Amino acid sequence: MQSKTPSESITTMTDMVLPSETNSLNNLFGGELLARMDRAASIAAGRHSKCITVTASVNHVAFNIAVPLGSVVTVEAKVSRAFTTSMEVYIDVWMENVDGSRLKANEAIYTFVAVDDAGKPTKVPAIHPETELEKERFAGALRRKQLSLVLAGKMKPDDATELKALFVG
Amino acid sequence: MQSKTPSESITTMTDMVLPSETNSLNNLFGGELLARMDRAASIAAGRHSKCITVTASVNHVAFNIAVPLGSVVTVEAKVSRAFTTSMEVYIDVWMENVDGSRLKANEAIYTFVAVDDAGKPTKVPAIHPETELEKERFAGALRRKQLSLVLAGKMKPDDATELKALFVG
Amino acid sequence: MQSKTPSESITTMTDMVLPSETNSLNNLFGGELLARMDRAASIAAGRHSKCITVTASVNHVAFNIAVPLGSVVTVEAKVSRAFTTSMEVYIDVWMENVDGSRLKANEAIYTFVAVDDAGKPTKVPAIHPETELEKERFAGALRRKQLSLVLAGKMKPDDATELKALFVG
Amino acid sequence: MQSKTPSESITTMTDMVLPSETNSLNNLFGGELLARMDRAASIAAGRHSKCITVTASVNHVAFNIAVPLGSVVTVEAKVSRAFTTSMEVYIDVWMENVDGSRLKANEAIYTFVAVDDAGKPTKVPAIHPETELEKERFAGALRRKQLSLVLAGKMKPDDATELKALFVG
Amino acid sequence: MQSKTPSESITTMTDMVLPSETNSLNNLFGGELLARMDRAASIAAGRHSKCITVTASVNHVAFNIAVPLGSVVTVEAKVSRAFTTSMEVYIDVWMENVDGSRLKANEAIYTFVAVDDAGKPTKVPAIHPETELEKERFAGALRRKQLSLVLAGKMKPDDATELKALFVG
Amino acid sequence: MQSKTPSESITTMTDMVLPSETNSLNNLFGGELLARMDRAASIAAGRHSKCITVTASVNHVAFNIAVPLGSVVTVEAKVSRAFTTSMEVYIDVWMENVDGSRLKANEAIYTFVAVDDAGKPTKVPAIHPETELEKERFAGALRRKQLSLVLAGKMKPDDATELKALFVG
Repeated sequence: MQSKTPSESITTMTDMVLPSETNSLNNLFGGELLARMDRAASIAAGRHSKCITVTASVNHVAFNIAVPLGSVVTVEAKVSRAFTTSMEVYIDVWMENVDGSRLKANEAIYTFVAVDDAGKPTKVPAIHPETELEKERFAGALRRKQLSLVLAGKMKPDDATELKALFVG
Repeated sequence: MQSKTPSESITTMTDMVLPSETNSLNNLFGGELLARMDRAASIAAGRHSKCITVTASVNHVAFNIAVPLGSVVTVEAKVSRAFTTSMEVYIDVWMENVDGSRLKANEAIYTFVAVDDAGKPTKVPAIHPETELEKERFAGALRRKQLSLVLAGKMKPDDATELKALFVG
Repeated sequence: MQSKTPSESITTMTDMVLPSETNSLNNLFGGELLARMDRAASIAAGRHSKCITVTASVNHVAFNIAVPLGSVVTVEAKVSRAFTTSMEVYIDVWMENVDGSRLKANEAIYTFVAVDDAGKPTKVPAIHPETELEKERFAGALRRKQLSLVLAGKMKPDDATELKALFVG
Repeated sequence: MQSKTPSESITTMTDMVLPSETNSLNNLFGGELLARMDRAASIAAGRHSKCITVTASVNHVAFNIAVPLGSVVTVEAKVSRAFTTSMEVYIDVWMENVDGSRLKANEAIYTFVAVDDAGKPTKVPAIHPETELEKERFAGALRRKQLSLVLAGKMKPDDATELKALFVG
Repeated sequence: MQSKTPSESITTMTDMVLPSETNSLNNLFGGELLARMDRAASIAAGRHSKCITVTASVNHVAFNIAVPLGSVVTVEAKVSRAFTTSMEVYIDVWMENVDGSRLKANEAIYTFVAVDDAGKPTKVPAIHPETELEKERFAGALRRKQLSLVLAGKMKPDDATELKALFVG
Repeated sequence: MQSKTPSESITTMTDMVLPSETNSLNNLFGGELLARMDRAASIAAGRHSKCITVTASVNHVAFNIAVPLGSVVTVEAKVSRAFTTSMEVYIDVWMENVDGSRLKANEAIYTFVAVDDAGKPTKVPAIHPETELEKERFAGALRRKQLSLVLAGKMKPDDATELKALFVG
């Protein structure tokens, strides 16, 4: 299978914040943004793998900025690294106001598994990062995978070499 | 007010066809696609005008291709021409299947009016088209505006010079 | 197949404007009204043809009136003319306020194709218009069909005799 | 306040059964039909009273017929009797299949109270029934009101003269 | 089949009042609450019967309290009595404000039928009530069933012994 | 402010998997479950703080189990630890099939901030854990907070004493 670049999977989902998606402060519910990001990231993973994809995990997501009703939200998703049958997808979120001001609202990282029609995992192409940012995110993906395995009790902290370096390096 | 290019308003809305949007043949409802195109075009008009915008009209839209459940649909909207307080927005729609095949599904043209908080029309910047396709769409916009005025009985066919040329060459 | 009257397909869809259907001015989104009209017109086409129907095109639609949250909207659809496998449906939209005042909000024209379970076009009964308004809409349908074919590049302007008469008559 | 006829409040809501409204047997959820009937009946009560109206109660509703996905459902609501500030609304529901067959699916009775902007009950016009069916429903409304008061412990069974006659007559 | 207790079917559905569920007074639509209660009661009936269940009827429901946008609503459903293939489900509804104050908002009674995959009614276990309130609701269920049969014209008032006692006792 | 127990905030949200929430394999979208968990956890945080709460972050969430259409999903949320103005909420998710089989589907951890009407953070009561599981989750919350600060670049790995012990202990 030939490797691909992150750009080949780029998925842009621009949409308004609708009244049915806001809380009592008239801001976008965190949960609605999580659902939008899941759909955008799933499309990016599908564009990379040419397969049906299912959400395997969501990495830590921080909500630093309230997104008011009527804002325009752009969710941009790109596959940052591919493992055997799974893909890490990096998501950047921006919000715009009517006056055109634009702000980085969020970053998030989801992991997807490519499956066949019976739901069985199937192989995906490798990723070949191009830009500096893509290379940095590609490198970080291994550390995040180790952290995830350690937290799930599937890897000993001692074997998580990339991660351990952060604390003992 | 300084004129802008169509690219400055480009709006990309990629999303899945969800089960709640399909008819009994399991294809996307025409009406749902009209609603998505309205939201994307409204964002493009907002990016051009930095104003709240309201839909003024929808031009002729043809649905030539059935879009099945689970497809990925990309709606791309760009302001094609601006008049005093109104903007014509040109919309291209593509669909992709899981195997990555990609198809032009639709074209549509919506018109929006920029309004202030009280709903009163306000002036918008002019458009300066750049590419061949943008120039062609810019030119056609005047003909479409005349057709719309003739059909609404607000312009005499005889005064619709651009449009008349089509028939009397 | 025996011809039918427009009244036999009349479809009335009265419903409220719900908060999830409004924009930041608290008025009904144009796109939501387009979706409601699509459903009502599709039912009218189904009542005429006794078949599954799919949206083929939307004619020019103008939005002249803002429809505020809490209004009652009535969409009334009737088949105005039938061609071999397609039907033109004429849609009238009214809005009412709580005080009972009532206003014509829109007119729109959609075209539907009757299909069998495999999605293949099937024949539909002819229309026999009864009232003055139905006769006028029946006559206009041919002109609109020609305009649609000319705009799609499927008919030479010179052959669109009904339409040409509007400009050179 | 001048009395009105039931016909003056008639409200027809025809719409499809959408995929998001069906259960795992692919039939319309009872709860979704209850919600549609509530909206239609609320509009009928608003047309009678020219006021905002709020649901006060739902009478016994039986679901005898499964309504499959893709059916067309018509909900027809009419005020059957008005008391000081409340209105009984009678609702008839029909379903149609694509082949045009049509079936009575349900009857239901809701009660609404007319309120002002502050939510305080306000007076409504009396009802003057015209047809035989309207007269029968008008008469039954008093019996139903008594039953409702007895069940809520607000009226002694002995004082519910209309209702008592049913059992001791 | 072994009998079960009401507690074995208890179903708690706590959720917010979302903007898309409110009327123009910013309170929860009666119809939306009816739909939520239907889903919760259907789950309770499913937990009792281990079958697919369909709504057979809704008993009288009174809406005494307005539930404002942003409230937390708890719907609690328990099977109160089982007949051969049907189950009466008793539903209690509470609302909470942000300050923690809590209020009984509603009671409702729905009846469900257990069905197999083909939609045919199937037998369900009997109910063995435990608490005082469960015993009282169990006893009342027979009276309600008789009332429902009398109102539907399927039982003579004279044979409705439980119900008759209320008036002639 | 008096401390509270986790049980005082327990929030149970049981609901069906509806057709509008499923992907093309007919399983619940990960994103929809993230949105449901956000609503349940937000209610739990509101019950603890008696304040409006906004989502601050989502911890790592793994999706190990596909949840098919028609399943019953129970989301149970409890505040696991409170810091000055923020609360960690621990969420357990179970799914049930029609036959009554029941399975742990997910665990997730969200963080919320309590705010006043102007959106400004306000103090919340401390948590006093009671059961063994509550004590374990209470202890882990500090480690998770440190990890979150380290990943956000707001704390030096060296100062994250709780976390560091995991790797160098």
